[in-house]
Amino acid sequence: MKLRVGILGATGAVGQKFVALLADHPWFEVTGLAASERSAGRSYGDVVHWLENTSLPSKAAKLEVQNANEALLDCDFVFSGLDSSVAGSLEEVYARAGYPVISNARNFRMHPTVPLLIPEVNPDHLNLIDSQDWGSEGYIVTNPNCASVGITMALKPLYDAFGIECVHATTMQALSGAGYPGVASLDAVSNVVPFISGEEEKVESEPLKILGTLAGNGVQPATFRVSAQCNRVPVIDGHLAAVSVKFKKTGVSIESALQAIGQFSIPREVSNLPGSPERALELMVDPTHPQPRRHVNYGGGMTVTIGRVRSCPILDLKFICLVHNTIRGAAGGAILNAELLASKGKLKHRSSVELAGVAS
Amino acid sequence: MKLRVGILGATGAVGQKFVALLADHPWFEVTGLAASERSAGRSYGDVVHWLENTSLPSKAAKLEVQNANEALLDCDFVFSGLDSSVAGSLEEVYARAGYPVISNARNFRMHPTVPLLIPEVNPDHLNLIDSQDWGSEGYIVTNPNCASVGITMALKPLYDAFGIECVHATTMQALSGAGYPGVASLDAVSNVVPFISGEEEKVESEPLKILGTLAGNGVQPATFRVSAQCNRVPVIDGHLAAVSVKFKKTGVSIESALQAIGQFSIPREVSNLPGSPERALELMVDPTHPQPRRHVNYGGGMTVTIGRVRSCPILDLKFICLVHNTIRGAAGGAILNAELLASKGKLKHRSSVELAGVAS
Amino acid sequence: MKLRVGILGATGAVGQKFVALLADHPWFEVTGLAASERSAGRSYGDVVHWLENTSLPSKAAKLEVQNANEALLDCDFVFSGLDSSVAGSLEEVYARAGYPVISNARNFRMHPTVPLLIPEVNPDHLNLIDSQDWGSEGYIVTNPNCASVGITMALKPLYDAFGIECVHATTMQALSGAGYPGVASLDAVSNVVPFISGEEEKVESEPLKILGTLAGNGVQPATFRVSAQCNRVPVIDGHLAAVSVKFKKTGVSIESALQAIGQFSIPREVSNLPGSPERALELMVDPTHPQPRRHVNYGGGMTVTIGRVRSCPILDLKFICLVHNTIRGAAGGAILNAELLASKGKLKHRSSVELAGVAS
Amino acid sequence: MKLRVGILGATGAVGQKFVALLADHPWFEVTGLAASERSAGRSYGDVVHWLENTSLPSKAAKLEVQNANEALLDCDFVFSGLDSSVAGSLEEVYARAGYPVISNARNFRMHPTVPLLIPEVNPDHLNLIDSQDWGSEGYIVTNPNCASVGITMALKPLYDAFGIECVHATTMQALSGAGYPGVASLDAVSNVVPFISGEEEKVESEPLKILGTLAGNGVQPATFRVSAQCNRVPVIDGHLAAVSVKFKKTGVSIESALQAIGQFSIPREVSNLPGSPERALELMVDPTHPQPRRHVNYGGGMTVTIGRVRSCPILDLKFICLVHNTIRGAAGGAILNAELLASKGKLKHRSSVELAGVAS
Repeated sequence: MKLRVGILGATGAVGQKFVALLADHPWFEVTGLAASERSAGRSYGDVVHWLENTSLPSKAAKLEVQNANEALLDCDFVFSGLDSSVAGSLEEVYARAGYPVISNARNFRMHPTVPLLIPEVNPDHLNLIDSQDWGSEGYIVTNPNCASVGITMALKPLYDAFGIECVHATTMQALSGAGYPGVASLDAVSNVVPFISGEEEKVESEPLKILGTLAGNGVQPATFRVSAQCNRVPVIDGHLAAVSVKFKKTGVSIESALQAIGQFSIPREVSNLPGSPERALELMVDPTHPQPRRHVNYGGGMTVTIGRVRSCPILDLKFICLVHNTIRGAAGGAILNAELLASKGKLKHRSSVELAGVAS
Repeated sequence: MKLRVGILGATGAVGQKFVALLADHPWFEVTGLAASERSAGRSYGDVVHWLENTSLPSKAAKLEVQNANEALLDCDFVFSGLDSSVAGSLEEVYARAGYPVISNARNFRMHPTVPLLIPEVNPDHLNLIDSQDWGSEGYIVTNPNCASVGITMALKPLYDAFGIECVHATTMQALSGAGYPGVASLDAVSNVVPFISGEEEKVESEPLKILGTLAGNGVQPATFRVSAQCNRVPVIDGHLAAVSVKFKKTGVSIESALQAIGQFSIPREVSNLPGSPERALELMVDPTHPQPRRHVNYGGGMTVTIGRVRSCPILDLKFICLVHNTIRGAAGGAILNAELLASKGKLKHRSSVELAGVAS
Repeated sequence: MKLRVGILGATGAVGQKFVALLADHPWFEVTGLAASERSAGRSYGDVVHWLENTSLPSKAAKLEVQNANEALLDCDFVFSGLDSSVAGSLEEVYARAGYPVISNARNFRMHPTVPLLIPEVNPDHLNLIDSQDWGSEGYIVTNPNCASVGITMALKPLYDAFGIECVHATTMQALSGAGYPGVASLDAVSNVVPFISGEEEKVESEPLKILGTLAGNGVQPATFRVSAQCNRVPVIDGHLAAVSVKFKKTGVSIESALQAIGQFSIPREVSNLPGSPERALELMVDPTHPQPRRHVNYGGGMTVTIGRVRSCPILDLKFICLVHNTIRGAAGGAILNAELLASKGKLKHRSSVELAGVAS
Repeated sequence: MKLRVGILGATGAVGQKFVALLADHPWFEVTGLAASERSAGRSYGDVVHWLENTSLPSKAAKLEVQNANEALLDCDFVFSGLDSSVAGSLEEVYARAGYPVISNARNFRMHPTVPLLIPEVNPDHLNLIDSQDWGSEGYIVTNPNCASVGITMALKPLYDAFGIECVHATTMQALSGAGYPGVASLDAVSNVVPFISGEEEKVESEPLKILGTLAGNGVQPATFRVSAQCNRVPVIDGHLAAVSVKFKKTGVSIESALQAIGQFSIPREVSNLPGSPERALELMVDPTHPQPRRHVNYGGGMTVTIGRVRSCPILDLKFICLVHNTIRGAAGGAILNAELLASKGKLKHRSSVELAGVAS
């Protein structure tokens, strides 16, 4: 019997990606959809402005959308694709009501006892949920910002092998990262917008928590500095980052850096999960790769592709990395987090009675 | 009487931009057009695949295209929009024949006695032409690479005020920089190509020569290091660069950096030239500016716009700058070079007899 | 002394185009700007989200924006770039208060006594304003929808020469036609939206009124049928239409059609106006022309370019035509209308006293 | 045991699509790849400039590319993705050597005894191959042009139900239809090119043969007239057509037209084939659908989506249809043709000896 999933913010762009990716999931089944009052009471198929390039799954289309602010969804755990303007309070409500909340929103990412999780990078951070206290069995787990995640995954083997002193990252981010309607077409076609509100702050802080170490009831963040310059480019899917790194260790050769990246392997506890790609990182040899349009879907959108690894005249190493911002960087990453939780017994079937209790 | 201008490589993208920009020039008049053998003997209007979004100037349309390899153009000086594969030898032929050669090609840019000129930045480098010896009165002057020029102009006031220790620049370059047919549309639409052949090398070296000081018969280059990451984005015109700088001087405040940029003024010998913009650098206050589509034509495509000036967590200062790659970064820059030369008496009317002599 | 111009809807996309095009107008001077309550009381430069790719004119930047619903602008006549949701009532207020209203909105286009004017096509329709009765000296003149205008101008010489029985037009319309923010970038990049609300109805009706004949106090519309299919394509500026026409006259040769188009001349009363292009219609011989990006700015955006004139296997003649949708199809067309009115003495200086009277 | 497939023109855009779509085919296995002399002798992975957005299949990557002009491929039948400049002669060589040739090239499409096949539309046309005489067991089967196929499939149920008198079709065609490098990005970004060489002729003739009836050794073409206007738009995949139809039958209501399209069913002999979509035609109710980016992959790229069915003021019915030009309109269509042939016993295993005989 599959675990019953609720989706908060189901009509938004991230919510839709959850619905699309969960259509045939072997472990999870979407049974509840919550959105704003405007959509409540009608079938999902009637209210959603479907943005995906696959058909709206027929089962989800028939579900009645519930008012997110009125009643709790009847399900075993929830994914949150909520906008940050409302995610904070609503996710807390669910956690207090005993639900596991697997969130893509930024609100709790930097909370001391909330894991900011990339299963291949810091699966041990899951232990933080034992330190959460919502007065219930509920907890919150988050995945990183869509630009942070690709950079952090690319840095992970380098950090482990050589230590990092500082990182400079210039991102070229896709339009889908801004949701829908998001960026106006007159700002996008034949243009670059060299600013994304709040984005550089996330890229400069999230990698430090993710690459940090568990200590007591929190995470001791990594200590390197990050400088980010975030740009919006006319690309549909795929955040590209031009990264330069200075290592703690001196004299790191390109070959040893390539070797570290190439040998990065997915922890066994993760590689068996349904959503795990074959490779978390894929090195590309063609000097013109990776490119968003060609490589964003590698590993079902869960693989970070890396290319142009070369030395940097001012730091140590330069490279390009690419991540699918709405799969690995949003819904797909959250689903992998849930799979890891499920495999560890942290998600379980809840009786409707039990739920009725908490929801009242 | 206007100076008579020849254009080498007249049918290419840069050659066309020369023709367009010179259509109503107060000092110069296009009298000769040279291209490959294939186009020779026919009128320019018949052979050119006109790419500009203005009408082909009717006077140029009627000129007969000459075979660049057969005879020298009857004119007072030449602009070279030649591809680097042929520019080296042909420009030398013209210089040896006594012509001033104002070139956009890369071949002679790093030659010790050839000025790599931005009139607002290093007009004194023009003196280098006295050290050239082509066995004639001819000489060669070049303008920088289309990505280098914007970055160098933006760095100039900072370099003068604070000294520079190192620069990191990630460029997002327009499609027109690759000429025509250039980048295939399937590589451009909804895509970024994180590689431009030879480009990073130019951005890492040209600024040093331009910001260097005249010494003897050459230029003592500036000594800072540059690290460049060059990307092709789906933008028609306008190279954007995300730049981070570390100064020689410590404790430089954002305010003093803004002041240095804001107070940068065009040398009087340049500001009176027909192609000089009102401002060489324009600071933008909107945090989402500059953007290629909106600001690339500022100052008739000759102004470099700068925005998002802020501190950098790992170097000292970060900012965004934008340059029109085919105007300031190519034909327009070369024309301003020619105007500076003309204003200094370095371009003069040559009699046809004189020319016949050299050309035979 | 220039006529003093007010702009209604000054902060919108069309309003901005009015401001940009009027910056250096020889006859008109912008003295008043009206927008919604939100912008009122602040300088235009502070409130406008400037979309044009030229600098915001400094004089306009300093004007204080007025609340369109509170007081009438102090000026001699107004241009209306209002959204149709508010244009109807506000334009009527101005007309009743004695102002000439030169409107780009659709509200009054099909009103019996309101001219739907293209100066080169139906200048005599201006006489309709004498039949308007707003209880004042005021009147309303409109210009056609941005897609209608190009098609109608292209049809004009054919209609005059051969009569028209029916027209099939498939449009490929630019993003700027939808205003700002308008089309979401995720609906635009690498996509076509085969629907534009209300557009086909306009293209199927407006040409009939424009090509109709004055009769009594109204216009006897032309009697041919139009079938339109309107599509939004990822183009910044320029509406392209693929048109097929069946003539009343039989046996019309391609040559005679080309001749009719080629010989179309601008009425002398129009050709001397400041905004009149050299050619209203321009035939292109290259079979791949006209193209939006290359030809949209011909004649300063006021020329309609026509190409691929050939026979149609089911109707008689096929061709492609291109119009600049925000210049000829909006603000530029309205300005030409105003120029025609001014040249005929229909716009005049109004004293402030006079204005104060009507406005109270 | 799978049938062994050879691909002619394997390194081109269509050839690559064959390789991608056949990677896991249940009936067919790629065993031979032929390309130009330049690529011959090297592994496919080394020579191909892989354009697909999925990984190059590892098995194909290891195959040695053969010189198409030197020796025949060792396989049971061939797909031809050849350019029309070479397809004619080479396909004939293969047919004469006894191979079934399933071609996407245009060269033999209008040949009297060569089926121009859409399995859901005219499967009986396959019988034509019995009338072919290449002096061997070989034969040639073709699929239609990428723009023709979508329009023809959409017309099929209407033609069967009401007869057709004439059709007007304006296409908005994707960049991938031009192959690689194909359209230059400077001709594509923010632009439409209103001309595609040879395309209108195909759209005006191919549907008539496909909807024609077998008669003797040939096809009696349908007798309606088609007028096509073909345009290239900046879309990666998906040809959209705005179609107007006049029926033979009078008084056809929108409802009955919708019913005819909605009830169109795939012949059983086709619906069981591996590449058959669930629906050949899919009616969309949202008035803004179909859109290339959202719907091009419906049915794995094999479904033609239809929307905006409404009456036409000059013909009878208007609608929009969308086809995936490189799947249904090229490689996917050819594969479905091959599957139909295989299911009818027209493709069979050939011994290497047998092949050696014909190839020498």
